Amino acid sequence: MIGIEEVAYYIPPNRHSNYNYLEKFSLDSSFIENKLGVRQVAIASPSETTFDLCTQAYTELLKKVTINSNEIDCISVVTQTPGENIPHIAGKIHGYINAPPTCACFDISLGCSGYVYGLTILKALMESQGYNRGLLFTCDPYSKIINPDDKNTSLLFGDAATVTLLSHEPVLSIGVSTNNTLGKGAQELKTENGNLVMNGRAVYNFCVQNIPQDVKKALSLNRVNIEDIDMFILHQGSKFIVDSIRQRLGIAAEKVPFFAHEYGNTVSSSIPIILSDFIDKNHVKKILISGFGVGLSWATNVLMRI
Amino acid sequence: MIGIEEVAYYIPPNRHSNYNYLEKFSLDSSFIENKLGVRQVAIASPSETTFDLCTQAYTELLKKVTINSNEIDCISVVTQTPGENIPHIAGKIHGYINAPPTCACFDISLGCSGYVYGLTILKALMESQGYNRGLLFTCDPYSKIINPDDKNTSLLFGDAATVTLLSHEPVLSIGVSTNNTLGKGAQELKTENGNLVMNGRAVYNFCVQNIPQDVKKALSLNRVNIEDIDMFILHQGSKFIVDSIRQRLGIAAEKVPFFAHEYGNTVSSSIPIILSDFIDKNHVKKILISGFGVGLSWATNVLMRI
Repeated sequence: MIGIEEVAYYIPPNRHSNYNYLEKFSLDSSFIENKLGVRQVAIASPSETTFDLCTQAYTELLKKVTINSNEIDCISVVTQTPGENIPHIAGKIHGYINAPPTCACFDISLGCSGYVYGLTILKALMESQGYNRGLLFTCDPYSKIINPDDKNTSLLFGDAATVTLLSHEPVLSIGVSTNNTLGKGAQELKTENGNLVMNGRAVYNFCVQNIPQDVKKALSLNRVNIEDIDMFILHQGSKFIVDSIRQRLGIAAEKVPFFAHEYGNTVSSSIPIILSDFIDKNHVKKILISGFGVGLSWATNVLMRI
Repeated sequence: MIGIEEVAYYIPPNRHSNYNYLEKFSLDSSFIENKLGVRQVAIASPSETTFDLCTQAYTELLKKVTINSNEIDCISVVTQTPGENIPHIAGKIHGYINAPPTCACFDISLGCSGYVYGLTILKALMESQGYNRGLLFTCDPYSKIINPDDKNTSLLFGDAATVTLLSHEPVLSIGVSTNNTLGKGAQELKTENGNLVMNGRAVYNFCVQNIPQDVKKALSLNRVNIEDIDMFILHQGSKFIVDSIRQRLGIAAEKVPFFAHEYGNTVSSSIPIILSDFIDKNHVKKILISGFGVGLSWATNVLMRI
């Protein structure tokens, strides 16, 4: 059975403080603290590419686990900001880590739901092909596509990359995922001439209307009661979104982390960043993960300690 | 078991004749006839997007098979030229065809090997999730990213889109695929500032060095003898590449079609375009498909009539 053996991440050190923009955008600090929940956002350097961020995450992974790169059977990168579109980033990573020629490499284009989807896709591929070890990267440095004068996006999104080692020696099992789409809402979160444009109100409404019931559906699919989940890792869309979903589900705040205060909404990296910090905490046995955003798209799954 | 139920394609009607460029590029007509094999390339109109080409292919599919779009469980688009990167094209198609909210949608970033990879990825996902019907699109309108003064690319690539209906009522089974990568060669076929740049000689050498043995490996994996294959659908890289691979394998020319004379190398669409024309030919029982290109990446599989 293929599951999660290890997770690592890289957040570039440079930060932009949102407190520097209160006047520019006519905001008060309670908006930053209570609505966004993001005090500062992580920003990659202009020369740092999606590929570079991914290789930094891989360097972090090697500090946590020994990997013989010649045994990697597949590599996939979840990204919608690859920089150049050709070739796919997974191919370049293949060359960088010296993976074998029989290694399957492709990128997956999805946004904030991408990590949950990516786990399902890679697990299915690996089990059907008999693969033993795979790497699932996430990386969407939105700083490359954000207009700094757009208060809907420039105060919210941060840059990061993560990598998850999937293997037949897992620490966490990957359950049955819900995978959902509302294509009629595609225009609410999109690029126009390469710049990100978001209808924050529409995305918020979409989240609170769909995620609580999807959480319940995923619990049912995986035959787990809501009170048996030790941690709900929701995509860190904003503090207000996470709080709203949590309240609708009636879950205690301490089970639903919001950790993006100091780096921002890192798109598909938001869930694995938190997962990385809890994968070695043995008392956290059942973890629900839920991603939602671009597409519009959402997916929920349950991970269980083995 | 998930397999291929139907395939359809759309090639935009506008053509650029390569005979108009003999003088510009100091070429003779034998180069066009015998090396490229491409007399004219299909070009989408400037306003026609990747999404538009995909929906045209879907319209063609509906002429061949009845689809209740509310029963589509997943949609994936293989593309590296989506136009805007956010959202993924599959999400927009979801909205266009009115697929249900429980439909999984994502794009796959791969080039000329993308159809073979895509079949493997979607089949694995569908079987693991219990999905009954999925749509696999391919679309890479390279005319959007080609410099018309670049003779390495402007005479070769044509625009097209295809869509494959995967279902539990298949006409063709999907075998075990080889999936390969040579990331060290990633720079041989790439975009620079959004424009395609190809080292044709390096790509040719990569193909003739790797594809013949990969064909043999896929035959072995699927326990089929080379003489039992009725048709070898090789990616239509160029006539010279297809002929070179065929000769190294010692296969009769009539089993290895080169059909791209009048529309060009359509990237990930080249294999399903030919497959679409042969899926209802009952005498063609065993089909080998092999895609190779961007990444560098290659994949080979065997389809069998059920």
